Amino acid sequence: MKWTALSQMPCSVARTLAVVGDRWTLMILRDAFLGVRHFDDFQKSLGISRTIVADRLATLVREAVLSHKPDAKTGRPAYRLTEKGLELYPLIMAIVGWGNRHYAEPEGPPLLHRHESCGHDMTSVASCSHCHTALDPRDVTVRANPAIAIAHF
Amino acid sequence: MKWTALSQMPCSVARTLAVVGDRWTLMILRDAFLGVRHFDDFQKSLGISRTIVADRLATLVREAVLSHKPDAKTGRPAYRLTEKGLELYPLIMAIVGWGNRHYAEPEGPPLLHRHESCGHDMTSVASCSHCHTALDPRDVTVRANPAIAIAHF
Repeated sequence: MKWTALSQMPCSVARTLAVVGDRWTLMILRDAFLGVRHFDDFQKSLGISRTIVADRLATLVREAVLSHKPDAKTGRPAYRLTEKGLELYPLIMAIVGWGNRHYAEPEGPPLLHRHESCGHDMTSVASCSHCHTALDPRDVTVRANPAIAIAHF
Repeated sequence: MKWTALSQMPCSVARTLAVVGDRWTLMILRDAFLGVRHFDDFQKSLGISRTIVADRLATLVREAVLSHKPDAKTGRPAYRLTEKGLELYPLIMAIVGWGNRHYAEPEGPPLLHRHESCGHDMTSVASCSHCHTALDPRDVTVRANPAIAIAHF
């Protein structure tokens, strides 16, 4: 099955990965969350071809993950995370957290994250939307949504 | 810059994506969290070539995300998430959550997740490890870790 076909499967994972499942796309999103706004800065940060950067940015704009508008002050075109794009924060923080835990230098993670409203350095924890405790995958069961006629699983 | 070079950068995102940033790898992980254990079942679920499945599984075993051992009862070789692999749950749930929110059918998400210890259907929320409230990216600041001699950012 081609990737384009997979993205048509009734699977939220497949559809999400069809949009943001590309490595360079995720690196661009990392940069966007770190405040990178301009084409040349994305290209410089990643050190990849302008074609790849342009292609990935175009996909993200088409899917309304990024907006692409002139900056109000300078008039220079800027890429900014939309609300939909900001909702990818749990994904980026999950990648950061796992990488920091398993692939950081002995001295520690390269970046530190401070939660301003509580004033502490922190990591992101996946929690239950109902009881707010940290999720253990062994404590979660999955079932097909009865409202969906044809369940993939 | 080649992807292999990028993975050597002192960036937890880049290093993580060098391991699990491939779309098919993430689909395999999705299936592993849904209980798929055997080569043929991964291949059947994804409908891709045995070569791609074998390649991605080999990477995940080499990085100790999956173990590959004979099943205790049947003796059949089985792939199972290790503790390191189980720690990817926030990543998978972040993908699921975003996909359900933006790419589900009108009838709702294809799968429902129940948190057994609290007894409710739920979604995964990225929360602060210190104060446990849901994270808003606009409320988080990032700085280079002073312990790291050469910060990438």
